[in-house]
Amino acid sequence: MMDKNIFVELLTQHHFKAVRNILDVMNEVDIASLLSDLDDKELALAFRLIPKDKAAEVFANMNNSMQSYLVEMFTEKELKELLDNLYMDDTVDMLEELPANLVTRILNTVSQSDRNMINLLLDYPDDSAGSIMTTEYVGLRRHMSVSEAMTHIKRTGIHKETIYTCYVMDRRKLVGIVTAKDLMTAEDYVAIEDLMETEIISVNTHTDKEEVAELFRKYDLIALPVLDADNFMVGIVTFDDAMDVMVEEATEDITKMAAMSPGESSYFETSAFVHAKRRIGWLLILLFSSTFTGTIITKYENAFAAIPLLVSFIPMLMDTGGNCGSQSSTLIIRGIALDEIHFKDIFKVMFKEFKVSFMVGVVLAAANGVRILIMYHNATMALVIGLSLMVTIIISKLIGCILPLLAKKVNLDPAIMASPLITTLVDICSLLVYFNIATHILM
Amino acid sequence: MMDKNIFVELLTQHHFKAVRNILDVMNEVDIASLLSDLDDKELALAFRLIPKDKAAEVFANMNNSMQSYLVEMFTEKELKELLDNLYMDDTVDMLEELPANLVTRILNTVSQSDRNMINLLLDYPDDSAGSIMTTEYVGLRRHMSVSEAMTHIKRTGIHKETIYTCYVMDRRKLVGIVTAKDLMTAEDYVAIEDLMETEIISVNTHTDKEEVAELFRKYDLIALPVLDADNFMVGIVTFDDAMDVMVEEATEDITKMAAMSPGESSYFETSAFVHAKRRIGWLLILLFSSTFTGTIITKYENAFAAIPLLVSFIPMLMDTGGNCGSQSSTLIIRGIALDEIHFKDIFKVMFKEFKVSFMVGVVLAAANGVRILIMYHNATMALVIGLSLMVTIIISKLIGCILPLLAKKVNLDPAIMASPLITTLVDICSLLVYFNIATHILM
Repeated sequence: MMDKNIFVELLTQHHFKAVRNILDVMNEVDIASLLSDLDDKELALAFRLIPKDKAAEVFANMNNSMQSYLVEMFTEKELKELLDNLYMDDTVDMLEELPANLVTRILNTVSQSDRNMINLLLDYPDDSAGSIMTTEYVGLRRHMSVSEAMTHIKRTGIHKETIYTCYVMDRRKLVGIVTAKDLMTAEDYVAIEDLMETEIISVNTHTDKEEVAELFRKYDLIALPVLDADNFMVGIVTFDDAMDVMVEEATEDITKMAAMSPGESSYFETSAFVHAKRRIGWLLILLFSSTFTGTIITKYENAFAAIPLLVSFIPMLMDTGGNCGSQSSTLIIRGIALDEIHFKDIFKVMFKEFKVSFMVGVVLAAANGVRILIMYHNATMALVIGLSLMVTIIISKLIGCILPLLAKKVNLDPAIMASPLITTLVDICSLLVYFNIATHILM
Repeated sequence: MMDKNIFVELLTQHHFKAVRNILDVMNEVDIASLLSDLDDKELALAFRLIPKDKAAEVFANMNNSMQSYLVEMFTEKELKELLDNLYMDDTVDMLEELPANLVTRILNTVSQSDRNMINLLLDYPDDSAGSIMTTEYVGLRRHMSVSEAMTHIKRTGIHKETIYTCYVMDRRKLVGIVTAKDLMTAEDYVAIEDLMETEIISVNTHTDKEEVAELFRKYDLIALPVLDADNFMVGIVTFDDAMDVMVEEATEDITKMAAMSPGESSYFETSAFVHAKRRIGWLLILLFSSTFTGTIITKYENAFAAIPLLVSFIPMLMDTGGNCGSQSSTLIIRGIALDEIHFKDIFKVMFKEFKVSFMVGVVLAAANGVRILIMYHNATMALVIGLSLMVTIIISKLIGCILPLLAKKVNLDPAIMASPLITTLVDICSLLVYFNIATHILM
């Protein structure tokens, strides 16, 4: 990796030839990351030294503040050149984050047809296939031969985001798919029609992008065609965007499972205020629901006034219940996300979790019983705690597996049914179980 | 999607032509999933009806028990044909799970050179680039022209897992990379040498596969070359395997964060006993550590004997602390996994979490204070609980952000520093804070 300090020194001392040489051999992603450490003036200078064929790709990999600055600073000609070389999906990604005056500037620079296309793409919902697709793909016709197709690709392919999946079109309808591998390994005279695959996996502009990513993973796709409501082909999603969606969705689920509202920017890019805002909502809800737990304790005041030792087992019971519940809910939430567990499996899941919780309960109750016998020489207390543990564990694991599946059934995100919410519910159950068992046996 | 019942009926009534027609248009992944619902005898029958050019790919997409059954049942000739058409990485994946007698059978069927290769691949550690790579890639030479390269690919490419990235070799050393896009859009006479990219992103056979997946995402790669200790090229990893690793790693992290040992098979494929085994370890550790919390409560017996109301706030304080801690640890763990947060950022992170916890603390303490004033008309109690909440939240968030970073520093998996472990720690802190503040102000 290039040393940033050396690079800045070469740049500020106007050793442009050396800088150009360095940029010439570097990868676009690495250039973008190197440039992100520069201040604005250096950035503008360095960007102009990037080889023409790399500039657009470097730009697409920059963060929004860098993009904003450059767009503002570009001459008309530079802006036009950049926009000509950017893929449509990268242009739209950028526009979604730019301030309004720069968006206007860009829309005024592109051609009328591009402007229409951009406005259409900007209109798709945030989490839809339409919002991540690009409109540049290779279209072929049925009656072309392999060599005609290759000539067509040689002429037009350089501006397409991928040429490895080509789409055979008949009056704007998608009728077949030919891979570059098919083309490269077939004889020149073969007709596209005889080569193409007609069983096509496709999505609609409004398909959820999480579903899109799942299709890529399931079928090992490089690109996926996107159709509009009339079944006309309007674009493709490429595997690199699908990979990003996969990682984003996992992050989103993990964030929700820890009782936070998810955000799109990274930890450091998000301000402390926004972080606080995303965390307070659930904390308030959980705070008030956990006061119920407190009220239950108050109800059994007499019990723990008579036997103070009872209170000391509360944290252990509550924590174990919470942990057991979140183990189950986590597995189920992840299984739902990966399309491995469905609502119809609910009884199968419950039975499995019951078996698991029985085994777990026996081991934990026994281990804890031995500890109580050693520490307090109190067999009755060991029995009370052991029984409470067993029942708590079984209830927690059942709650933990049922709630995410119910959420999925009513079209809520299963991820919100994760540990924090379940902990609160389980707390209430475990205390009720505990005090009922304790008062029956001990009093 | 094909209806399973119709398919089975056609199969058992020996309508082989119809079955063949169906299999002919279906995708390999879908065929594997359709076949997974059949019993063994139907499976063997159906597999033999799959078109020859799809059979290996369908086989690669089957689960282990189906693969075992088929390998056992195949004739010598069928097995050889299958192995000839399977990619090396799929063969190795299968061998890792098959019973020993079938492994021997397969190793006896393949050629000596394949056998050596398989044994080499089986030797790489489970989580290394070597374990997910394939050895079939397109190698070119510097002095070839584009048209020579295309002829070479036409002759050999059909058996390669990807031909979209070609590797230019010089005495087993990798000297450059040419994409199929370069080849398809360049003129026939251009020399590979002039077309190839010489700044190469590569990994070593022992590179962690999580790192490999991260490179695919960062650089939007289709394939990545793998070098051995002597820098000779030995194979490639393809993007589909990288996508699987990405999803597996996220699942693994999520599982660990909920205090379970991760496993490779899906929820239903894992027996209740194995599920229980994976969950009991952490539960036992957490159970015993939460008895410390109980001991702390016992120490302050006098305080809550004097003011019983104190006990009723314990669950609320413990839960809020736990939730705050797990919010922070979750964000940090995910940030570390995505390479966005590093140990050197620890003070930056701590300062940010301090600011966040201050804001969160003020809001929660105020909301809760109002509730206590309304319910109990007790301003002192509101003050005690408010103060305890503030301090608990700040401590929890700091613990939540420091522990995962420390774990990373000492080469532990940050994911184990997630909610359950932090909850236990935070419980202890919040109770100590609470009782100290309460006894100072109230007694």
